[in-house]
Amino acid sequence: MEVTRGNFREVLLKLERILPAAEFLAIDGEFTGLHTGQDVNAFDTPSQYYSKLRSGSMDFLLVQFGLCAFSYDKENDKYTHQAYNFYIFPKSPQIRSAPDPRFLCQSSSIEFLASEGFDFNKVFKEGISYLTQPEEQKLREHLEEKHKSCNNTISSSPGNEDSFQPIPIPDEYVSTIEDSCAHIKTFLASSEPEELVLGCCNAFVRKLIFQTVGQRFDSSVVQLESRLTDKRNRVMVVTRAGSVEERKKKQQEKKDKELQDLEDAVGFTSVLRKISESGKLVVGHNMLLDVCHVINQCYFPLPEDYSEFKEMVRCVFPNLLDTKYMSDLPLFKDKISSNALGHLFKTLSEEPFKMCIAKSEEDGHGYSSLDDKYHEAAYDAYITGLCFITMANHLGSLQKPEVNPVLPSSPLINPYMNKLFLLRVQDSPYINLIGEDPVVRRDHVFFVSFPKEWKTYDLTQLFSPFGSVFVAWLSDTSAYVALHHRNQASLVRKTLTQSDTYTVMTYAAHQQIQDGITNC
Amino acid sequence: MEVTRGNFREVLLKLERILPAAEFLAIDGEFTGLHTGQDVNAFDTPSQYYSKLRSGSMDFLLVQFGLCAFSYDKENDKYTHQAYNFYIFPKSPQIRSAPDPRFLCQSSSIEFLASEGFDFNKVFKEGISYLTQPEEQKLREHLEEKHKSCNNTISSSPGNEDSFQPIPIPDEYVSTIEDSCAHIKTFLASSEPEELVLGCCNAFVRKLIFQTVGQRFDSSVVQLESRLTDKRNRVMVVTRAGSVEERKKKQQEKKDKELQDLEDAVGFTSVLRKISESGKLVVGHNMLLDVCHVINQCYFPLPEDYSEFKEMVRCVFPNLLDTKYMSDLPLFKDKISSNALGHLFKTLSEEPFKMCIAKSEEDGHGYSSLDDKYHEAAYDAYITGLCFITMANHLGSLQKPEVNPVLPSSPLINPYMNKLFLLRVQDSPYINLIGEDPVVRRDHVFFVSFPKEWKTYDLTQLFSPFGSVFVAWLSDTSAYVALHHRNQASLVRKTLTQSDTYTVMTYAAHQQIQDGITNC
Ligand SMILES: Nc1nc2c(ncn2[C@@H]2O[C@H](COP(=O)(O)OP(=O)(O)O)[C@@H](O)[C@H]2O)c(=O)[nH]1
Ligand SMILES: Nc1nc2c(ncn2[C@@H]2O[C@H](COP(=O)(O)OP(=O)(O)O)[C@@H](O)[C@H]2O)c(=O)[nH]1
Repeated sequence: MEVTRGNFREVLLKLERILPAAEFLAIDGEFTGLHTGQDVNAFDTPSQYYSKLRSGSMDFLLVQFGLCAFSYDKENDKYTHQAYNFYIFPKSPQIRSAPDPRFLCQSSSIEFLASEGFDFNKVFKEGISYLTQPEEQKLREHLEEKHKSCNNTISSSPGNEDSFQPIPIPDEYVSTIEDSCAHIKTFLASSEPEELVLGCCNAFVRKLIFQTVGQRFDSSVVQLESRLTDKRNRVMVVTRAGSVEERKKKQQEKKDKELQDLEDAVGFTSVLRKISESGKLVVGHNMLLDVCHVINQCYFPLPEDYSEFKEMVRCVFPNLLDTKYMSDLPLFKDKISSNALGHLFKTLSEEPFKMCIAKSEEDGHGYSSLDDKYHEAAYDAYITGLCFITMANHLGSLQKPEVNPVLPSSPLINPYMNKLFLLRVQDSPYINLIGEDPVVRRDHVFFVSFPKEWKTYDLTQLFSPFGSVFVAWLSDTSAYVALHHRNQASLVRKTLTQSDTYTVMTYAAHQQIQDGITNC
Repeated sequence: MEVTRGNFREVLLKLERILPAAEFLAIDGEFTGLHTGQDVNAFDTPSQYYSKLRSGSMDFLLVQFGLCAFSYDKENDKYTHQAYNFYIFPKSPQIRSAPDPRFLCQSSSIEFLASEGFDFNKVFKEGISYLTQPEEQKLREHLEEKHKSCNNTISSSPGNEDSFQPIPIPDEYVSTIEDSCAHIKTFLASSEPEELVLGCCNAFVRKLIFQTVGQRFDSSVVQLESRLTDKRNRVMVVTRAGSVEERKKKQQEKKDKELQDLEDAVGFTSVLRKISESGKLVVGHNMLLDVCHVINQCYFPLPEDYSEFKEMVRCVFPNLLDTKYMSDLPLFKDKISSNALGHLFKTLSEEPFKMCIAKSEEDGHGYSSLDDKYHEAAYDAYITGLCFITMANHLGSLQKPEVNPVLPSSPLINPYMNKLFLLRVQDSPYINLIGEDPVVRRDHVFFVSFPKEWKTYDLTQLFSPFGSVFVAWLSDTSAYVALHHRNQASLVRKTLTQSDTYTVMTYAAHQQIQDGITNC
């Protein structure tokens, strides 16, 4: 089901019932881009990898969030699902002090999403707003302060400008100002229409009108405000002030409206909170970027400190499972030749696996596995959920005696939980959210720096005495070079050192230098 | 008429006839945002203003370019027009070394355009590509080099990998590799189908297959390539290599395709070139940002040096006229209370002006002035053109004897040409493209720095002995303060100096300090 500004409140209410009743949740996100340039490297450590994501990927926007809630019916041993596609977009400020965010797009990502049928018009027009906690708090305080000070201004001047030093009216504007005042006088003398709109004039003239009306009319008689028309032209609107009661009522309505605007601005952030509070297992496929974006947009700006980041993830998502990580482990890896989501689903639909079926719980709220709507966030979440159930049950089928079903609470799932897969890291380590990160042996990896003219060929040539190598570029003058024959490493250390054109050092030495740089 | 990738070639041909026959051209652009944060100030000099645009606005994208060609029929004294709305978007690289641009969006701008009915899906899916001259040149050289070296590889190995140091095949992949080779053997033995697609496998397995096929099969028999599917999964495709003739023909087709891809990538840049070559007067309303974007995206990255920038504009647009600048000059200013485009058009439709009529030359290629499609680039260009004709003819009506019509070539137009309006600059100077910029007296302006807690109120209080002031914020600890009573300036210079909490200096002194900073 598509969720936009129009039906958001309704869906949010519904989630209050659905989330606690779910067996587990699957999520997926779509972004306006992936990275700004300095890409991750095959031999980054988890913490370096995180730093690069934080500085290179968070300026892009999460524009669609897919949530798929899976329920399990014990009696009939059947899963069902409900899928929601949230369209998300930072609202431009209704509230004057709210931020007007800038965000980044990557051409290839945008073009790809558009070609897959992603509806950007819908996101931009009807996207649900969101705020981080600090943003929300700031706006709330600002509003409270404003409402407090407002209580004393019922009887201030109409334009509530600080009119202690009037601006002299230049000759060329005198007739415009006088015309406006005459109009207002006529308007106040009659009882209709409700309001008088003073036409097109520039900001300075508006200021002069405010000032003059403030001097000549009483605020208990006339109210003046500037308003944006549909076409984004600014006009001035005159209304009759009415009695003190009427003005108080109007002011209360305005306050209520502002509070409602604030709730709307919080928007999707409430969904994240509800997911978090539910404590349910949250499943994603290659979910690091999704987790980073959703936290960064709806919770707290990502911290610089890596261990703080881990703590933050644990706090927002106390139970996570990454199906990309799971499918990359021994019991699955040798049966799965590619774990891109589409490939994984296809492989898990064949022997020796048994693809789970999870019907849609309600018409229009879900998918069938034949839909083939890859890259629609909720569909990807749905497929991810099916993959998770199938892999979980496969684990059960390997037990003696067989275990069926294997639910998220099963101890068989434990080893796969709270680890985030690191895409494109060569020896596939992962982020361990509940302990130390894995330490991988990289004795066979060397850091090399060289002239800009070098190509992969030059590096393979340099290392050719030691067999074939894998090159992971760092910049156009440096790279990590990994030996395929690990046992050649000590030979490299002994024979290859420096020259005028290039330098070679061990991976460990280079890491130490880098740590030195980041620590000072 | 809407112009997208689909009908672009056709329209480009048409423009070759239309542009030389036009009396003048009007243009307008739509962008994904306006500025990144450090906004222009009411007392910036033209060159400071330019610097801020260059560093703060060029990361946004021009996504729609409106071009309206006006023709004049002397015999019947009638204008006609033809309007084109170009959808523009940087193509993600088909050519491997082409850039994958990142660009910025500003929420409020995006939301506004979307709410006005701007079709982002169309831009992202069917937008016409563009390249700067350096980008085009780089791609052209790259392609030529590639095609040259290609001529010698007809008989190289199938995967044209450098196979001097084979990677040892890990045990877990042996069966996959052997399976693939067996498939290829069977495929080669038969004559159908045309190609064999080897399914989902990861990058490393693909590399191993390339290597093994290179070792075991002859390139005159089998061709292997990796290809992206519609769903962006990478697969490997095997084809029969065919005779030397056939392979040569295939290679030629591939080259032709690559050259055509390059032409498509140049895309909209050709429109700018044709406009430039036409030498026609180009009219825009508040056109500085349009001019900057179109040059930056389709000609050359904007230079840091301000005079170089002026020269570049002169080179691309030898004859420019900004209707915002024109309407701000004495003969018009006192008759026009706001020169926002919509307001201007409305004012020029009434006495003493006589709004020009310019029918659409061809069905579906133009507008009527009743359309009210503001913020559609070609419509805004059309309205701008009408405003220009009307103001020009008004100039003629003020002559004794009256002149009618006043065409772009009339000497009456000369004083308005090649000046670019600077929006929100207080004493409205402009960029003079054909000479020195105007020097404005700013003796009544003071630079003040103060604690973060200060508000406008504190500044007006500080200056209250000298009458009312206008405050132009620079940052949250500094601002320019302008006196309404200019004759108080010397009194301020004498009496207001420093204190522990704030500093005051003349505008001239502050400019000198700034120049010092930028020059060192
Ligand atoms: N000098 C040199 N630098 C290269 C070469 N290939 C890649 N690089 C550098 O390495 C960076 C990353 O390249 P690569 O790993 O191919 O890109 P990926 O698509 O992100 O994996 C590039 O931006 C270049 O700076 C090369 O052949 N020579
Ligand atoms: N200390 C202080 N700084 C302000 C105040 N108003 C504006 N500023 C600063 O001036 C910048 C520009 O503000 P303003 O001119 O109102 O924004 P505009 O909408 O771009 O014209 C802001 O980003 C603040 O840094 C104020 O009342 N106090």
